[in-house]
Amino acid sequence: MIYITRRETFSAAHRMFREGWPDEKNLEIFGKCSNPEWHGHNYVLNVTVKGDIREDLGFFINLSTLKKIIHEMVIEKVDHRNLNTEVEFMKGKIATTENLAIAIWNELKPVIEMYGAKLHCVRISETENNTIEYYG
Amino acid sequence: MIYITRRETFSAAHRMFREGWPDEKNLEIFGKCSNPEWHGHNYVLNVTVKGDIREDLGFFINLSTLKKIIHEMVIEKVDHRNLNTEVEFMKGKIATTENLAIAIWNELKPVIEMYGAKLHCVRISETENNTIEYYG
Amino acid sequence: MIYITRRETFSAAHRMFREGWPDEKNLEIFGKCSNPEWHGHNYVLNVTVKGDIREDLGFFINLSTLKKIIHEMVIEKVDHRNLNTEVEFMKGKIATTENLAIAIWNELKPVIEMYGAKLHCVRISETENNTIEYYG
Amino acid sequence: MIYITRRETFSAAHRMFREGWPDEKNLEIFGKCSNPEWHGHNYVLNVTVKGDIREDLGFFINLSTLKKIIHEMVIEKVDHRNLNTEVEFMKGKIATTENLAIAIWNELKPVIEMYGAKLHCVRISETENNTIEYYG
Amino acid sequence: MIYITRRETFSAAHRMFREGWPDEKNLEIFGKCSNPEWHGHNYVLNVTVKGDIREDLGFFINLSTLKKIIHEMVIEKVDHRNLNTEVEFMKGKIATTENLAIAIWNELKPVIEMYGAKLHCVRISETENNTIEYYG
Amino acid sequence: MIYITRRETFSAAHRMFREGWPDEKNLEIFGKCSNPEWHGHNYVLNVTVKGDIREDLGFFINLSTLKKIIHEMVIEKVDHRNLNTEVEFMKGKIATTENLAIAIWNELKPVIEMYGAKLHCVRISETENNTIEYYG
Repeated sequence: MIYITRRETFSAAHRMFREGWPDEKNLEIFGKCSNPEWHGHNYVLNVTVKGDIREDLGFFINLSTLKKIIHEMVIEKVDHRNLNTEVEFMKGKIATTENLAIAIWNELKPVIEMYGAKLHCVRISETENNTIEYYG
Repeated sequence: MIYITRRETFSAAHRMFREGWPDEKNLEIFGKCSNPEWHGHNYVLNVTVKGDIREDLGFFINLSTLKKIIHEMVIEKVDHRNLNTEVEFMKGKIATTENLAIAIWNELKPVIEMYGAKLHCVRISETENNTIEYYG
Repeated sequence: MIYITRRETFSAAHRMFREGWPDEKNLEIFGKCSNPEWHGHNYVLNVTVKGDIREDLGFFINLSTLKKIIHEMVIEKVDHRNLNTEVEFMKGKIATTENLAIAIWNELKPVIEMYGAKLHCVRISETENNTIEYYG
Repeated sequence: MIYITRRETFSAAHRMFREGWPDEKNLEIFGKCSNPEWHGHNYVLNVTVKGDIREDLGFFINLSTLKKIIHEMVIEKVDHRNLNTEVEFMKGKIATTENLAIAIWNELKPVIEMYGAKLHCVRISETENNTIEYYG
Repeated sequence: MIYITRRETFSAAHRMFREGWPDEKNLEIFGKCSNPEWHGHNYVLNVTVKGDIREDLGFFINLSTLKKIIHEMVIEKVDHRNLNTEVEFMKGKIATTENLAIAIWNELKPVIEMYGAKLHCVRISETENNTIEYYG
Repeated sequence: MIYITRRETFSAAHRMFREGWPDEKNLEIFGKCSNPEWHGHNYVLNVTVKGDIREDLGFFINLSTLKKIIHEMVIEKVDHRNLNTEVEFMKGKIATTENLAIAIWNELKPVIEMYGAKLHCVRISETENNTIEYYG
C-alpha cells in the first residue's frame, strides 16, 4: 500500500464563536479567535490517500486527478471566503480547524472512493504552529 | 553598519476594495480579494533596522527591545483583527499589503529612531508567494 | 478522534557523552557531538494530543491550554539552558534527542490527561535533517 | 520504541512513460511528466527507522551510521543522475515517485536490519506539494 | 517606491557543459552537474518589480497581472522542460543558473515595463542551498 | 554583475556576556542569552559573493569552490563548537551574532578575493526569527 499526499493552500476569514452565547462568553472560551470583526489565515491543507499501486502505471491515482478533486470539492469553496458565512459544508458548525478537517474529510471521502482510492488523512495547519489531523 | 531583522507573524482579516465603487468594479480590479464577506491571511512581517555596533555590547539595539517595539506598535493592533475596520493606522486606506507596509513603516520609524537605530526595511509576505518591501 | 499538534521551539546547549568514559571513547561513539565544550541547537518540538471533539465547542482541548502546558512543563525548563547540567528531568541521562523525547513525554503525559486528552506523539527535530518521534 | 528520521536531498532527471506506448498515449496518462526530453526535481527523501533505545548509549542506531547507509545505498546512485537510464534499481520500472519509494525501501531494508534496526517508512517529496510514503 | 515579489516554481532538466569540450573537461569544470544523461531541479523563481503606488488603487501593478506575465513569459516555457534542448531563450548558452537568471531578466524586462513598472531583481534558487540574483 | 549565495548551517554553543561584569549585570543587558551554563543554536549562514560572469563558463566562481572556502574558513571552525571558548576568530569578542557576522566577513573576504570575486554579504540567522546581515 502506497500513501500519496497533496498539499494545497487557501486563504479564508473565520471567527470561532458559539451562536447564542454573549460575546464575553465566546471571548472567555475562544479568546481572540472569537473577534466579531473576523480574522483569517493562510490554511495549509494536506490530503493523504492510499491504495495499491497498478503495476502497469506505477501509481494508483493520478496526482493531477487528486489535485482536481481537492480543488473542486474544497479549494473553490473556501479560498478567499468566509468560513462562517459562505461555506455550505460549515453551516451550523463552530468554525474551528477541528470541525473544518472533519467537514473536508466528509466532502472528499465519497469522491476519492469513486476513483478506487481510500482517503487516509486530512491535515490542516491553521498557522505554522497549529495543526489538526483527522483519520475518519 | 549592521542590519538586524526581526520576524513576526500575525493573522488578520481584510478585503481589498475602494469605497464608493460598486462590487462589480471592485471585483474587476481586485478580483477575489474584494470578497465583501472578507478573507484573511497569516501575514509574515520582517522588520530590518540598521546601526553601528557598540563595541562594549556587541550590538546596537537589543533584540528584545526591537521585538517589544514591533509588538506594541504593530502586532497588538493587527493580530486577530480586521485590517479594514479595526486598525486605526489603516483607516481610510485600501487594505492592500502595499499600503499596510507603508503604514507599518510610519508606525515604527519614530520609535526605532528614539532608540538610536534606523529603520531600513519593512517586508510583509501575505502568502508564501507574495511579498511586499518598503524602504521609506 | 481528532489529533492536534502544537509546534514550539527552544534553544539549548548539550553534549552527548557517557559519564565515566574517557573523551576518546565518547568521541568514537558520539563523534563531534561529544565535544566537552558543548554545542547547541534550535530544537523544534511538536506535541500531538488526541481526543474526541466536544460538539458544543468544536474542539476537545483548547489550543491555548495546550500551549500553556507545553511552556510550563517543558519550554521554561529547557529554553536557553544546558540540557546536561540544568534540566532536572534529564539528570543522569545521556543527552540524546531520543532520551529527550522520552523525558518530555513523561513530563507531559500526566498533565495532558488531567485535561481529558491523550498524549499521542512527541516529535523533536534537532536539526532540519534529524528528527526523533516517541509514541509512548 | 523510538523512531528516528533522517532527511536527505538529491537532484535527478526523470520522465514518466510506459515503454511501448506512443508519446500521445503517455502524454494522455502522465501529462507533462512524460516529456521525452526529460525534466527533473530536487527530491527530498525522509527515511524513518525504529528500534528500542539502548540505555547505555541513549540511542539504538547512530545517526551518522544511518546517514552513511542512506548515502551509500541511495544518494550516490541517484544524485545528479537520470532515474530512467542510470539507476540500476529503477531499471524496467516506470519512474514514478511511488515506484521510487518502493525501490528505495527494498535497497535500504536489509542493510538497516543488519544494524539491528527496523525500517519504518520511506517518504519522498517530489515537489513541496507532492509526497509519497511507503511502509513496506 | 514599493517592491513586490512574486514567487513561482518550475521543474526542469538541465546539464552544465560547454559544447566542444570532451566529457572529461566538462566533468573537471562542472563536476557532476555535467552528467550527459541530465539531472534536474525544482527551481524557485522570485521576480521583484518596483514602482510608485497609485493612491486610488493601493498598488502599482496588479499581482494577478504580474503572475500572468511570469507564467506566459517564463513558466510555460521552462516547466517540465529540458533547459538545454527545449528552451528558446537558453539556446547557445551554458545552462547555468547564472545564465538562466540573465535570460529570464531579458524576457521579463520589456513586458514589465509595458505595465509601467520596473524590473528590480530576478532571483533563482536551484536548490535550497544555492541561489542566484541578477539586478540587470 | 551576478550575485551568488551559498547557504550552510552549523550548530554551536555560545553565551552573551561581557567579561568583568557580574552575572546580574550581564543578565540585565543580555537576558537569558547570558546564561553561564551556555545555550546554543542551529545557525544558518548565507554568504553572497558577486562578480561578472565569464561567458565561456556561464559563471564567475564555481559553486563547489565557494562551498569549499566557506567550509574551510568557517564551518570547520564553528560547527559543534563553543563560540566563546573554541573559536579563534571570536576570541576577545562578545559572542553576539552581530560580532559573528563581522568576524566571518573578515575570515572570508581575502580568500573570496583571491578567486577574483567580491564578498557582498554575510547573513546569519540565529533562529528563524532573528537575522543579522553585514555588507562590510
